[in-house]
Amino acid sequence: MFFTLEANDPRSNARAGTIQTDHGAIETPVFMPVGTVGTVKGVSPKALNEEIQAQIILGNTYHLYLRPTTEVLNAAGGLHKFNNWHKPILTDSGGYQVFSLAAMRKIKEEGATFRSHIDGSKLHFTPENVMDTQRLIGADIVMAFDECTPYPVEHKEARKSMELTHRWLKRCHDRFHATKPLYGYNQFLFPIVQGSTFPDLRKESAEYMSEHVTSGVAIGGLSVGEPEQTMYDIAGLCCSILPKNVPRYLMGVGTPANLLNNIALGIDMFDCVMPTRNGRNGMLFTTKGIVNISNKKWQFDFSPIDEGLQNDTSQNYTKSYLRHLFIANELLGLQLASVQNLAFYCWLMREARKKIIDGTFTGWKDEMLPIVTTRL
Amino acid sequence: MFFTLEANDPRSNARAGTIQTDHGAIETPVFMPVGTVGTVKGVSPKALNEEIQAQIILGNTYHLYLRPTTEVLNAAGGLHKFNNWHKPILTDSGGYQVFSLAAMRKIKEEGATFRSHIDGSKLHFTPENVMDTQRLIGADIVMAFDECTPYPVEHKEARKSMELTHRWLKRCHDRFHATKPLYGYNQFLFPIVQGSTFPDLRKESAEYMSEHVTSGVAIGGLSVGEPEQTMYDIAGLCCSILPKNVPRYLMGVGTPANLLNNIALGIDMFDCVMPTRNGRNGMLFTTKGIVNISNKKWQFDFSPIDEGLQNDTSQNYTKSYLRHLFIANELLGLQLASVQNLAFYCWLMREARKKIIDGTFTGWKDEMLPIVTTRL
Repeated sequence: MFFTLEANDPRSNARAGTIQTDHGAIETPVFMPVGTVGTVKGVSPKALNEEIQAQIILGNTYHLYLRPTTEVLNAAGGLHKFNNWHKPILTDSGGYQVFSLAAMRKIKEEGATFRSHIDGSKLHFTPENVMDTQRLIGADIVMAFDECTPYPVEHKEARKSMELTHRWLKRCHDRFHATKPLYGYNQFLFPIVQGSTFPDLRKESAEYMSEHVTSGVAIGGLSVGEPEQTMYDIAGLCCSILPKNVPRYLMGVGTPANLLNNIALGIDMFDCVMPTRNGRNGMLFTTKGIVNISNKKWQFDFSPIDEGLQNDTSQNYTKSYLRHLFIANELLGLQLASVQNLAFYCWLMREARKKIIDGTFTGWKDEMLPIVTTRL
Repeated sequence: MFFTLEANDPRSNARAGTIQTDHGAIETPVFMPVGTVGTVKGVSPKALNEEIQAQIILGNTYHLYLRPTTEVLNAAGGLHKFNNWHKPILTDSGGYQVFSLAAMRKIKEEGATFRSHIDGSKLHFTPENVMDTQRLIGADIVMAFDECTPYPVEHKEARKSMELTHRWLKRCHDRFHATKPLYGYNQFLFPIVQGSTFPDLRKESAEYMSEHVTSGVAIGGLSVGEPEQTMYDIAGLCCSILPKNVPRYLMGVGTPANLLNNIALGIDMFDCVMPTRNGRNGMLFTTKGIVNISNKKWQFDFSPIDEGLQNDTSQNYTKSYLRHLFIANELLGLQLASVQNLAFYCWLMREARKKIIDGTFTGWKDEMLPIVTTRL
């Protein structure tokens, strides 16, 4: 069994489960730190294991294809051997990067043609070659190649794009199942529900994906600028349609409050650059609320970064010291803030899982929401 | 006993000893990673302990005075509590920074007046207030306030400066012994031999310091642009005069070869920004030689960063991966390269110590010199 559903919250659609991969089990709900080019920015695999207790990290096919290249990754024996991370990895398909980063993109039936954001070289991604690339990268979970629409978008455009994504899924599926993993362990393909913010399209796409899902399914095209309530409405709609026996991954989401609310709707997996990116800007997510560590108010605060977390970084460095590191532009500040934020995100998911299993998730979530949104 | 001399190499002036401080023992020869503003750039105390096995780190009085300020350090209970490093710390006196960083400096009998390199504010350092500052910082070993001359300098200027440094030493000594440590552990004051590259002045200064040394002594004003052989000649001359029962610290030196050659002359302690600064530029010091990790030749090299070292970073990441991190401008590259270089420097000192104790130092040094200077 790829996914075992272990508990349902009695007062919401929150679920707890376990995903089995050849690189180990993943307990859900789970947050996946983003390791764009094969490294979670500023954070070592050792810290991911010991301090953050990450269960799975994400890599970006588009970025890894450009650097270090699939030639290097293949020679290394896959991404796990290359980057010294031996637990599960998920790679996105590049669809989102084509939408958000690439210049001069042209989307046709065959695939997407665009220019590299690094050197302007011309690239051509198709459902087939994106599957081949993800075979070469060697992630445990790979994503179908999709088109991600901007927000807002006309209904007509969103339909056209969704239908293309559906046709591309079939091609992804065919290529994926016509090829084999290269490094001796299984890989699993997740399709991606699209349809922008239109309930009729999302319903249609979720129904389509429900018929074609084999191991897990993602919801893409959210967290691209739409109102928060719209994201919840669409995620909730998708969850009400998608089968219960596969994990549901909401791509690119979000704040701690977003995670808690989406768990309540039935989402199992998340990824987001927010904890690392905001961390590098001095914004800390803690068990007591949000801290802008560069603020003068922390200059003489010798309390731990986060008393509520048990890892070395949160416990053994003070707010005063971390503020000093940010004011002095020291690298260690970026490292400590990134570890703190990822440790908090992963802790929040572990706590959510416990509460779901205990049957107390909804009450706990209602207590946590005002805390995680408080600015200290 | 502050310093116990344990072994002398039969074929050189190399020595092995142990320095006792209230934050633990320091086995010499020792390399001190530089933690300018209270952090070794890009390296956590955890990595310093576990991977690098650093025994003592250095802080800069000038930098710490500006940021986080002595007010914050005092409120924290001293630098060890502030930066989560619980082994020994040495602080320099600011003399070198006044020489190398400060704008519009005026050196008078009373002290040095200059402007901050951060905000241009006017600062006044005297032997007395530098002692007070180092009491507030709370390092285990503190340095006398000295004037560091540029290279080259006229003999007359060098004499004038040296004599000022000698007079300042008396004032440092008086103030240091008229005050007490603030945080419940002992502090030790090291004077600094000056005299530029003039043997007569260095002899005079070393003799003066020999009369005034109480725990350890430093040699300053070298590694400021003079020829390498001149540095060795002056360091050797100073060592021939300085008492044998105190540790000798050669400030701001140097390459691995510099360290080995100066150990042979009788130096016990070193510090240098080279391993971290060059590491951040992709220059690795390894047990096999020097690696420019950004070079294309490492793209497909999946051997460990340094098979000769046993720590996590050197063993479990490949040259190919570290090259990728540098090419992609990833923070983790700076971190891993800094750990590798400091681990190598500290390993080199531990090996040197073993060989001195075994009586095989000179032969080992002659084998190591061509290795540590080879560019791979």
